[in-house]
Amino acid sequence: MIRIMTQNDFQHFWPTFKEIIEQQETYAFDPDMSQQQAYALWCQKVDNAYVMAEGDEILGSYYLKANAMGPSNHICNCGYMVAPQARGKGVARTLCEHSQSEAIKLGYRAMQFNSVVASNQVAVQLWQRLGYQIIGTIPKAYRHPRLGFVDSHIMYKWLQ
Amino acid sequence: MIRIMTQNDFQHFWPTFKEIIEQQETYAFDPDMSQQQAYALWCQKVDNAYVMAEGDEILGSYYLKANAMGPSNHICNCGYMVAPQARGKGVARTLCEHSQSEAIKLGYRAMQFNSVVASNQVAVQLWQRLGYQIIGTIPKAYRHPRLGFVDSHIMYKWLQ
Repeated sequence: MIRIMTQNDFQHFWPTFKEIIEQQETYAFDPDMSQQQAYALWCQKVDNAYVMAEGDEILGSYYLKANAMGPSNHICNCGYMVAPQARGKGVARTLCEHSQSEAIKLGYRAMQFNSVVASNQVAVQLWQRLGYQIIGTIPKAYRHPRLGFVDSHIMYKWLQ
Repeated sequence: MIRIMTQNDFQHFWPTFKEIIEQQETYAFDPDMSQQQAYALWCQKVDNAYVMAEGDEILGSYYLKANAMGPSNHICNCGYMVAPQARGKGVARTLCEHSQSEAIKLGYRAMQFNSVVASNQVAVQLWQRLGYQIIGTIPKAYRHPRLGFVDSHIMYKWLQ
């Protein structure tokens, strides 16, 4: 079940969020941000944040927001996170499909990911299977703790 | 002379800013934003905003800020505006060259423009002459009042 994320949900989700940003392999987020800063970023400076839950367990979450203003405000942006114990079960795919329907309901016409780290091949391939195209690659965009400077892809899908 | 923009400078610059966003040909900014919102965007949610002035006259302005956080915080982003009466005199070039030096001083390694509207050929060509490359193109990224949906380029330069 996917629903709007509450502040209580975010508190339960925080260990996953913290682990993901501390790994510094996927998100261009400050790895030292506080829970409060993370909540503001993920749940407040967005249109909506959602959780996918099974009973008390949060499997994953995503946010949906405009990617730019004014004449470009028909393009939205999302970020997805899946709890470690829920990986490999299609949660990211389910969240992404849900986000596309929500984006259309909110009036968006396209979705753009601004930084899909090239070494995160699982993500790149999943987004490609879901119809997102690599429309550009930012050289040396991400300082990976093991791989050094890694490129990031910009991915885009026009929503039907 | 280029210097840090004051709140008083922004007040003098506001007619230029307002005209540019109302034209909706170059910036993905809300064309109806207030002066206060514009000041927050251009001067407060950034590292620095600068003005180029000649006596009392403001010729142009730019902001400089990080384009992302954490492992991508070595890439900065700038936006430039030139006053109508100062166009065709190399102001944008001077501002951009200045911004590259400032970016290096602030510790950035690269600069990225997230949305250079493809129909704004003067800008695209100037940035190319200054060493920025088109690293991607966002389809139908910008609703142009005369041209309809126009693509936007993502441009990037690794700073020396």
